[in-house]
Amino acid sequence: MLANIQKGIVHLRHNKLFEFFVIAIIIISALEIGAKTYNLKPTTLYLLAYMDVFITVFFLFEIIIRFIAEDNKKNFFKSGWNVFDTLVVAISLIPVDESEMALLARLIRIFRVLRMISIIPELRLLINSLLKALPRLGYVALLMFIIFYIYAAIGSYLFQHINDDLWGNIAISMLTLFRVMTFEDWTDIQYETMDHYPMSWIFYVTFIFFTAFAFLNMVIGIVVGVMDEEHAKEANKGQPSMSDLQAQITQLSTQVAVLSKKKRKRLKKET
Amino acid sequence: MLANIQKGIVHLRHNKLFEFFVIAIIIISALEIGAKTYNLKPTTLYLLAYMDVFITVFFLFEIIIRFIAEDNKKNFFKSGWNVFDTLVVAISLIPVDESEMALLARLIRIFRVLRMISIIPELRLLINSLLKALPRLGYVALLMFIIFYIYAAIGSYLFQHINDDLWGNIAISMLTLFRVMTFEDWTDIQYETMDHYPMSWIFYVTFIFFTAFAFLNMVIGIVVGVMDEEHAKEANKGQPSMSDLQAQITQLSTQVAVLSKKKRKRLKKET
Amino acid sequence: MLANIQKGIVHLRHNKLFEFFVIAIIIISALEIGAKTYNLKPTTLYLLAYMDVFITVFFLFEIIIRFIAEDNKKNFFKSGWNVFDTLVVAISLIPVDESEMALLARLIRIFRVLRMISIIPELRLLINSLLKALPRLGYVALLMFIIFYIYAAIGSYLFQHINDDLWGNIAISMLTLFRVMTFEDWTDIQYETMDHYPMSWIFYVTFIFFTAFAFLNMVIGIVVGVMDEEHAKEANKGQPSMSDLQAQITQLSTQVAVLSKKKRKRLKKET
Amino acid sequence: MLANIQKGIVHLRHNKLFEFFVIAIIIISALEIGAKTYNLKPTTLYLLAYMDVFITVFFLFEIIIRFIAEDNKKNFFKSGWNVFDTLVVAISLIPVDESEMALLARLIRIFRVLRMISIIPELRLLINSLLKALPRLGYVALLMFIIFYIYAAIGSYLFQHINDDLWGNIAISMLTLFRVMTFEDWTDIQYETMDHYPMSWIFYVTFIFFTAFAFLNMVIGIVVGVMDEEHAKEANKGQPSMSDLQAQITQLSTQVAVLSKKKRKRLKKET
Repeated sequence: MLANIQKGIVHLRHNKLFEFFVIAIIIISALEIGAKTYNLKPTTLYLLAYMDVFITVFFLFEIIIRFIAEDNKKNFFKSGWNVFDTLVVAISLIPVDESEMALLARLIRIFRVLRMISIIPELRLLINSLLKALPRLGYVALLMFIIFYIYAAIGSYLFQHINDDLWGNIAISMLTLFRVMTFEDWTDIQYETMDHYPMSWIFYVTFIFFTAFAFLNMVIGIVVGVMDEEHAKEANKGQPSMSDLQAQITQLSTQVAVLSKKKRKRLKKET
Repeated sequence: MLANIQKGIVHLRHNKLFEFFVIAIIIISALEIGAKTYNLKPTTLYLLAYMDVFITVFFLFEIIIRFIAEDNKKNFFKSGWNVFDTLVVAISLIPVDESEMALLARLIRIFRVLRMISIIPELRLLINSLLKALPRLGYVALLMFIIFYIYAAIGSYLFQHINDDLWGNIAISMLTLFRVMTFEDWTDIQYETMDHYPMSWIFYVTFIFFTAFAFLNMVIGIVVGVMDEEHAKEANKGQPSMSDLQAQITQLSTQVAVLSKKKRKRLKKET
Repeated sequence: MLANIQKGIVHLRHNKLFEFFVIAIIIISALEIGAKTYNLKPTTLYLLAYMDVFITVFFLFEIIIRFIAEDNKKNFFKSGWNVFDTLVVAISLIPVDESEMALLARLIRIFRVLRMISIIPELRLLINSLLKALPRLGYVALLMFIIFYIYAAIGSYLFQHINDDLWGNIAISMLTLFRVMTFEDWTDIQYETMDHYPMSWIFYVTFIFFTAFAFLNMVIGIVVGVMDEEHAKEANKGQPSMSDLQAQITQLSTQVAVLSKKKRKRLKKET
Repeated sequence: MLANIQKGIVHLRHNKLFEFFVIAIIIISALEIGAKTYNLKPTTLYLLAYMDVFITVFFLFEIIIRFIAEDNKKNFFKSGWNVFDTLVVAISLIPVDESEMALLARLIRIFRVLRMISIIPELRLLINSLLKALPRLGYVALLMFIIFYIYAAIGSYLFQHINDDLWGNIAISMLTLFRVMTFEDWTDIQYETMDHYPMSWIFYVTFIFFTAFAFLNMVIGIVVGVMDEEHAKEANKGQPSMSDLQAQITQLSTQVAVLSKKKRKRLKKET
C-alpha cells in the first residue's frame, strides 16, 4: 500500500507537467513579490495574502514529494541545492505577526526567487562554474583586502582632519576607497585633500593602478582560465593525447626492432 | 523572351557596378536621414522629399531584382537578411500622412541604415558570430535578471519611504540598480539610504560585486570563448587531428605485425 | 675619399654611443616641450629658444646620416618609420614667425616626442601588433558607427525639442551618445528625457547594452586573439606541425608496404 | 651546546604552532593599526602602546630565529621576501619621539600588514606572477606615458588660458588626462573647452580611444597571455612535445629503411 503511494509520488516527481507547474508557481511567487512593491488596492492585497499561503503550502508539498521520491534519504541533504530549497521553505513557514515583523517576513520571501536557479539546470551549471573559480579568486580577494586595508589606514591617518565623513576611521575609509575604485566622483575627494597635501594625488593614482587595473585584469585572467579549461575538457574528449601517440609509436618501434633482430639471426644462420 | 529578361536581371544583380551603386544609395539614404536633423531651408527640404521617394522606389526595384535573380524562390525568404531587407522596404512603402505620423515615418526610415549591415559581408559575419554567442549569454542574462529582481525587491521594500523617485516600485528600482551597475553617481544614492540604514552600504557593495565584477567577467569569458573557437576552427582547417594520426599509426602497426607473422610462418616452414 | 666619408658615417650610425646620444637628445627635446608649459623667466626662454635650434639642426643632421648610411637609397623611404622621422624633421624646419603662428609651431614640435617610439624597437613592435589588429577592428568600428548613427538619428528626432544642446543635430547627438557610452552622467540625460517620454529609458539601456557591453567585449576578443596568435607563433617556432608528422607517418607506411610487397614477391618466387 | 640551541631553533621555526602564532601576531598588529584610526579612550591607547612594543619585539625575535635557522646565512638575504621582512622590522625599531614624528612612525608601522603577503605562500605566488608580467607591461606603460605626455603638452598649450587649474602646466594636465581616462566628469572639462574651441571634442575622443580602449585591452591581453602560459606549462608537464614525436618517427623510419636495405642486399646475393 505504502510502496504504491511512493511509486505514485516518484512518478509524479518526474512528470514533465508537474515540473512545469512548479516553475510556473515559482514565477508567480516572484511576480507576487514584485507586485507588492506597488501601491495596491485592499482587495488585491487580500488576494495576494491568500496566494502567499497557497504558494507556501505548495512549496512545502513539493519539497516533501521530492524527499519521498528520493530512494536514499541521506543523499537528499548531500545536494547543496536541496538543502537550499528546504531552508527557503522552512523559513517561510515560521509564523510572523504581520504587524510586527512584516518587513522581515517580506524580505525572507524574496529568496524564493532564488529557487529559479535551483530548478533550471543551466543556471545551476553557471553557479557551479563560478563556485569553482572561487578558491582562486579568494586569494586575489585577500590581496585586494590587504591593499585596501593599508591604503585605508594611510588615508585615515593623513586625511581624517580634512573630511571626517570620508576618512573618519578605517571602515569608512575602505568604503571611500571602494568608491574611488569605481571611479565615482573620485576627483572631488582628491582635489579636497590636494588642498592640504598637494602631492596626495600619488595616493589616489597608485591606488587606482593597484586595484582597478592590475587586479581587475587578474580576475579576468582567472575567469577566462576557468572557462578555457572547461572548453579544453570538452574539446579533447574522445581525442587521444600526445602521450597515447608516443606510446603507440614506441610499441611500433619495438615491433620493427624485433623484426630486424630476427632477420639478423636468420642471416647469420643462413651464412 | 521572359527567360532573356531574367537572364539580364541575373546579370545585372551580379554586376559589380550595380552593387556599388546600391551601396552608394544606402549611404546617401543614411546621409539624408542625418541631414534632416539639421534646420534646413524649405527648398532643401523639398529636394530631400523627392530624394526620399527616389530611394524608396530604388530599394523596391532592387529587392524585386534580387527576388527574380534567385533561382529557387523559396530559398529567398529562408535567408534572414533577405527577410530583413524586404521588411525595411515594405514598411517604408506604407503611405503616411506627413502631418499626422511624420515622426513615426521618419523613425522607420532610419532602419534603412541597417541595410548597410546586410550588404557588407564582413558585418554580416560579425553579427552572425554575435548571434552564436547569444544562447549562452541568454542564461547569464537570466541569472543577472534574477539578481536584479531580488535586489530591486529588497531595495523597494527597504528604501521606498526614503526616495520614491528611485525606489518607488520594482521597475523603478531595477532602473536605479542598472544605474548603480554603471557606477553612475551610485554613492549619492548610497549616502542617502545610509542616513536611515547605516549598514545599507552592504546592499550596494554586494550588488556591485555580484553584477559588475563576477558577471561582466563571465560575459567576457563567453565572448572570448566563441572567438577562440572560430580561430581554432580556421587554424585547424587542413591540419589533421590527433585521432587521424593515431589511426594512421595503428594501421602502420598492423602492417608491421602482418610482416612479422608472415616471417614467423616462413621461418617455421623453412625449419 | 667620398667612400671613406660614407664608411665613417656608417660606422658612426651603428655606434652605440651615437645611438645613446640620439635618445638623450629626444628625451631633452621632450623635456623642453614640457618645460615650456610652465611660466618661465625670460632668460630661460632665451636659452630654450637656442636649445630648440640646436635640436632641430641635430635631428636634421641625424636623419641625413641615416640616409647616407643606407646602402639602397630607395629602401630608406620604404620603411614607414623613416618616412615618419623625415616628416617630423622637415616640418620643424619650416620657418614660422614666432609672433604669428607661435602656437602652431609649438604644437608641431610636440610630435618630436613620437620619435621616442620610432627609436625604441620594443615600442615599434607594440605599435606594429596594434596596427595588425586594426583591419579587424575596422569592421567592428564600422558596426559601432552604424549603431551610433541610428541611435543619434532617433535621439535627434525625439529629443531635439527637450534639450537642443545635447540632441540639436546628428553630430551633437553622437557626441552625447559617446558620453552615455562612457557612463559619464548619463542618468542626468536620461531623467531629463524621461520627463517627456517615460519609456525613453529603453533608448539608453538598449544603447548601453549594444555598445558598452557586446562591442567592447568584441574588441577585447579580437585583441586577445591577435595576442594569442603572436604567442602561438613563437611557441610553435621550431616545433613540427601535425601535417609534418602525418607526412612522415605516411612515408613510413609506404616504406613498410614496399617491404611487404617485396616479401610477397619473393615468397611467390620461392614457391 | 650552541649546536643544540640552533637545533632547537630550527625545530621551533618549522613548528606548525609557531607559524600559526606568527600569523596571529601579524593579524593582531593589523587590527591594532586599524583600531588606532578610531577615537579611543586613554586607557585603550595606553594598552595599544604596550602591545605595539610587544609586537615590535616579537617580530625582531622571529626574524632572528629565521636567520639562525637558515643553514647558509648568505642565502637568507638572497630571498627578496626575507629582505623585505627585515626592512619592515628594522624600520619599526628606529626610536621616534611620539610627539614629533608620530604620524611618520604610524605610517611606517602600516607596512607591517604587508608581512601577511610574505607569510602566505599563495599570495607570494600571485605577486610573483604579477612581477613576471611587469617587464612586458613596462613598454605598454612607456607607450601610455608618451601618449599622455603628448596630449598633456597639446592640452596645456591650447587650454591653459581657459582653466589654469586643469591645464596650468604639463604635470597638472597629465593628472587631468588621468581623470579623463577614468571617465570621471570628463564631459565637464570637454564642454568648458568646447566653448572656446568647438572642435576640441576631437582631443578628448581620440585620447579616450587611444588610452582607455586600445591600451587597456592590450594590458588585458598581456595578463591573459601570462596566465595562459602558466596554465599551458602545468597542462603540458609530463606530455611529450611534437618534436619528441617527430624524432621517434624519424628513428623508426631509419630502422625500417635499414631493414629494407638489408633485404635488397640479400636479394642481390641470392640472385
